[in-house]
Amino acid sequence: MSDPRAILDTFENQFPGRDYVIEIVCPEFTSVCPMTGQPDFGTLTITYTPDRTCVELKSLKLYLWSYRGEGAFHEAVTNRILADLVAATQPRRMTVEGDFWVRGGIKTVVEASYP
Amino acid sequence: MSDPRAILDTFENQFPGRDYVIEIVCPEFTSVCPMTGQPDFGTLTITYTPDRTCVELKSLKLYLWSYRGEGAFHEAVTNRILADLVAATQPRRMTVEGDFWVRGGIKTVVEASYP
Amino acid sequence: MSDPRAILDTFENQFPGRDYVIEIVCPEFTSVCPMTGQPDFGTLTITYTPDRTCVELKSLKLYLWSYRGEGAFHEAVTNRILADLVAATQPRRMTVEGDFWVRGGIKTVVEASYP
Amino acid sequence: MSDPRAILDTFENQFPGRDYVIEIVCPEFTSVCPMTGQPDFGTLTITYTPDRTCVELKSLKLYLWSYRGEGAFHEAVTNRILADLVAATQPRRMTVEGDFWVRGGIKTVVEASYP
Amino acid sequence: MSDPRAILDTFENQFPGRDYVIEIVCPEFTSVCPMTGQPDFGTLTITYTPDRTCVELKSLKLYLWSYRGEGAFHEAVTNRILADLVAATQPRRMTVEGDFWVRGGIKTVVEASYP
Amino acid sequence: MSDPRAILDTFENQFPGRDYVIEIVCPEFTSVCPMTGQPDFGTLTITYTPDRTCVELKSLKLYLWSYRGEGAFHEAVTNRILADLVAATQPRRMTVEGDFWVRGGIKTVVEASYP
Amino acid sequence: MSDPRAILDTFENQFPGRDYVIEIVCPEFTSVCPMTGQPDFGTLTITYTPDRTCVELKSLKLYLWSYRGEGAFHEAVTNRILADLVAATQPRRMTVEGDFWVRGGIKTVVEASYP
Amino acid sequence: MSDPRAILDTFENQFPGRDYVIEIVCPEFTSVCPMTGQPDFGTLTITYTPDRTCVELKSLKLYLWSYRGEGAFHEAVTNRILADLVAATQPRRMTVEGDFWVRGGIKTVVEASYP
Amino acid sequence: MSDPRAILDTFENQFPGRDYVIEIVCPEFTSVCPMTGQPDFGTLTITYTPDRTCVELKSLKLYLWSYRGEGAFHEAVTNRILADLVAATQPRRMTVEGDFWVRGGIKTVVEASYP
Amino acid sequence: MSDPRAILDTFENQFPGRDYVIEIVCPEFTSVCPMTGQPDFGTLTITYTPDRTCVELKSLKLYLWSYRGEGAFHEAVTNRILADLVAATQPRRMTVEGDFWVRGGIKTVVEASYP
Repeated sequence: MSDPRAILDTFENQFPGRDYVIEIVCPEFTSVCPMTGQPDFGTLTITYTPDRTCVELKSLKLYLWSYRGEGAFHEAVTNRILADLVAATQPRRMTVEGDFWVRGGIKTVVEASYP
Repeated sequence: MSDPRAILDTFENQFPGRDYVIEIVCPEFTSVCPMTGQPDFGTLTITYTPDRTCVELKSLKLYLWSYRGEGAFHEAVTNRILADLVAATQPRRMTVEGDFWVRGGIKTVVEASYP
Repeated sequence: MSDPRAILDTFENQFPGRDYVIEIVCPEFTSVCPMTGQPDFGTLTITYTPDRTCVELKSLKLYLWSYRGEGAFHEAVTNRILADLVAATQPRRMTVEGDFWVRGGIKTVVEASYP
Repeated sequence: MSDPRAILDTFENQFPGRDYVIEIVCPEFTSVCPMTGQPDFGTLTITYTPDRTCVELKSLKLYLWSYRGEGAFHEAVTNRILADLVAATQPRRMTVEGDFWVRGGIKTVVEASYP
Repeated sequence: MSDPRAILDTFENQFPGRDYVIEIVCPEFTSVCPMTGQPDFGTLTITYTPDRTCVELKSLKLYLWSYRGEGAFHEAVTNRILADLVAATQPRRMTVEGDFWVRGGIKTVVEASYP
Repeated sequence: MSDPRAILDTFENQFPGRDYVIEIVCPEFTSVCPMTGQPDFGTLTITYTPDRTCVELKSLKLYLWSYRGEGAFHEAVTNRILADLVAATQPRRMTVEGDFWVRGGIKTVVEASYP
Repeated sequence: MSDPRAILDTFENQFPGRDYVIEIVCPEFTSVCPMTGQPDFGTLTITYTPDRTCVELKSLKLYLWSYRGEGAFHEAVTNRILADLVAATQPRRMTVEGDFWVRGGIKTVVEASYP
Repeated sequence: MSDPRAILDTFENQFPGRDYVIEIVCPEFTSVCPMTGQPDFGTLTITYTPDRTCVELKSLKLYLWSYRGEGAFHEAVTNRILADLVAATQPRRMTVEGDFWVRGGIKTVVEASYP
Repeated sequence: MSDPRAILDTFENQFPGRDYVIEIVCPEFTSVCPMTGQPDFGTLTITYTPDRTCVELKSLKLYLWSYRGEGAFHEAVTNRILADLVAATQPRRMTVEGDFWVRGGIKTVVEASYP
Repeated sequence: MSDPRAILDTFENQFPGRDYVIEIVCPEFTSVCPMTGQPDFGTLTITYTPDRTCVELKSLKLYLWSYRGEGAFHEAVTNRILADLVAATQPRRMTVEGDFWVRGGIKTVVEASYP
């Protein structure tokens, strides 16, 4: 995959004087298991307080689609998405939760936060 | 749109000596996406502690209807409604949450608070 | 309506040495809208820590029935019930929540606490 | 409103040899009450067995948006949508259900079928 | 109670050529138990196929409110509402279901149909 | 236990000209397992079309309480209640369903009908 | 596994004159996948109309436990349990449904009936 | 009732070096209303951190059964069970919640804690 | 895409003398919209009565994965999967239901059956 | 059982600089009651913040399978799994919750935490 951060676009936060919260839920996330080559599915929830910029939703959609052919462990993909979104939007606070479907009778949820 | 704040009406809080909470849920909010011109739908939840005045529900209903033909981004509409209601009722505390329907496989919730 | 507080009866708290919580849920509350004369419906939830007395349930039921023919705004009825119950039972802490049905596409919840 | 049927577009059914069922759920329907001028909201569910043509979804979306400024009673709007869709797609069988939100404490569902 | 049927109003069915179904759900029904004098609560669901007339919703609301002070057993009230609505609207088919709240640990549902 | 049928009382069906359905749900049924002496719990649902008489609810409550100290297998208790209610009310049709709680990791539902 | 049918016990149906239904739900079924050696889990639902005998629940529990160490495909285990229970109880009608947990992102339900 | 505390048995906590939580849910609690003689039903939830002993489940079951014939008010029964269990197990912390079924249209929950 | 039917494998039905039903639910189906190039998601439910062969689940999983990069309309993909599975397993009866996620505020379900 | 800790495998945490949370839900846990020899079932939820290593999911699955033939009390098995996982992964924080199915009408949940 070429650098997915290049896809992410932002727009100016119109209310920088206020500490408010944006929650974005993406129930259609899919990537590929790097060990078995099988598709993985999950729901990503991004919760953040913007500082000067907000993430533009269409670019976020394209960014998340870029994982469709990517091999990615659950822990790694959740942390990488957090890192990319923090780099792109410089938020005051951000949490990314990846809630992945059952594999082998076991369900995994990973939640990482900034700062 | 003419100034929507002009629609908002209030009545005197009969229990100013007590810090209590009013939650108002409006599941029939609709506006228009300023980029695509397509209708947006969502549920607005207003939670506040009144000081000297409470918001009058019929005027609130008309105020929210005034967005039916308005172009409004999710972040902007939530913050603007908070600002208008704070200006009209001068509450001790207020939170506005806009919970908008899925667009492009992504759901957005915006929550802003005063003070 | 004659004074509804006269209906409320209490019994002695048998466990005054312990701080415990009683929650009473009354999903069959109804009153009349003072502006339109139309019936209103809602669920009242009373949560309190008794001191020396507990509210007797049958008298509470009669007390709540006394609102069946009463005109009462949502904010006023919730605060008045709190005031009446505090006067009758002198609790250590009490919260009354009125969760009223949709009117004009808008749902209202009022929550008031003592002290 | 200009003739809303002009908006509806179709495409050729690729499987005319088989009797199969397409269900389309539109939870974002809104029109205007012809008596009060107030917005109405509801969920439209269209279930049909295509013959030679299927309804094109983007044109259906535009067709349903055309009711956003229209005055329409619940019974009339459900039957009119059925008539328009039958005229446009000539299906083997079709049912339209309009499930409208509470007004005055009363919820209404209208279901009409062809033939 | 004066004759409640006098309250019921109708309007002309605009689609008499089609056999369609209207379901009306009234979750705010209340009457009085004729034995104990205590309020009863329930949800009334009216499902019918109109012939020449439909029941007008505002008059239906007033008709149902007329039971607020009435003593009425569950079986009787359900059958009487069916009889009144059949007399007023002369439908092709009609079912009235009364789903009443728990009394003495027992819940009752009564369903009567015409013809 | 003395004959539980002696407890059951009836009242005259006021609408014998109509075939209608009464459903009575009793979620508080309890008896005793005849093998282990342990309490059993379940929900009884009685659905019937009355002919000349309806079962009186307070007597039904007392009748069901009479099982509180009784040893009764699931199959037997459901069939016996059906037989007793048929004998007492002579309905046109009646079904009794006993839905009993988990025992040993296994849940049992018994449903018997008349005629 | 020794013959599991030897474990199944029955008792005499006390109501052979009536056609009634017994549903038994066993949410704690587990066996072993014959291909991978991994445990499988599922819910078995047995629904039958007894003729002269009913299945005794404790023996049924032991019978189902006998699959804990058994290799069994979903189709085979459901049909075999039906065959064993039909042989043991000679019912008028019986259905066995096996509802097995997700494996490889796919959930399987098998339902077999007698006669 | 003879002293119900005599029924309660305990076993040694094998992990006294760790502060952990045991929650026990008993949805099959029943007693008798001391005023009306009618059965009451509810769910008891016991949450505690054991110190040196844990409550033995079979003895707890027998202890709770001992209320089947007892007259007990909701407040009293919840506090008495807490007191008995604290006396028997000397826990570090314990909460007992009694969640009782609707009576007269009113539901009651009592929650008491130690220390 | 090379011929996806080549992936589908079967095994011999061990119970051909009995008419039984197998339901397979695949909530992780994804393909690509042929018009917009955007990913689509849905749940496929396959219900069939096998004749001489059953579909092998691992090959079914690979077959469904083969759509991950395919452009496919909802109607077409549901009918094609039915055709491929009928060709591969020659069942007595089969239904395929595709339940696709919301796009443009509209949800689509397609259900096709054989014969 | 041979030492189950020998089965547990780990991999290096790729994000040791960040405090993040991994939740693993295993709804297919089964062991054997040491008193009755009967199978027990439950859901294990493991929540932890990794330090230098994460638990490898396939080895965790095998580790949990090792309890399939083990006699284990609810309190003991939950604490032992916590101890084994802490020993194997040396996490910053970890909680293990065992939510076990109803036995004798009583449900038990055990939750233990490190440190």
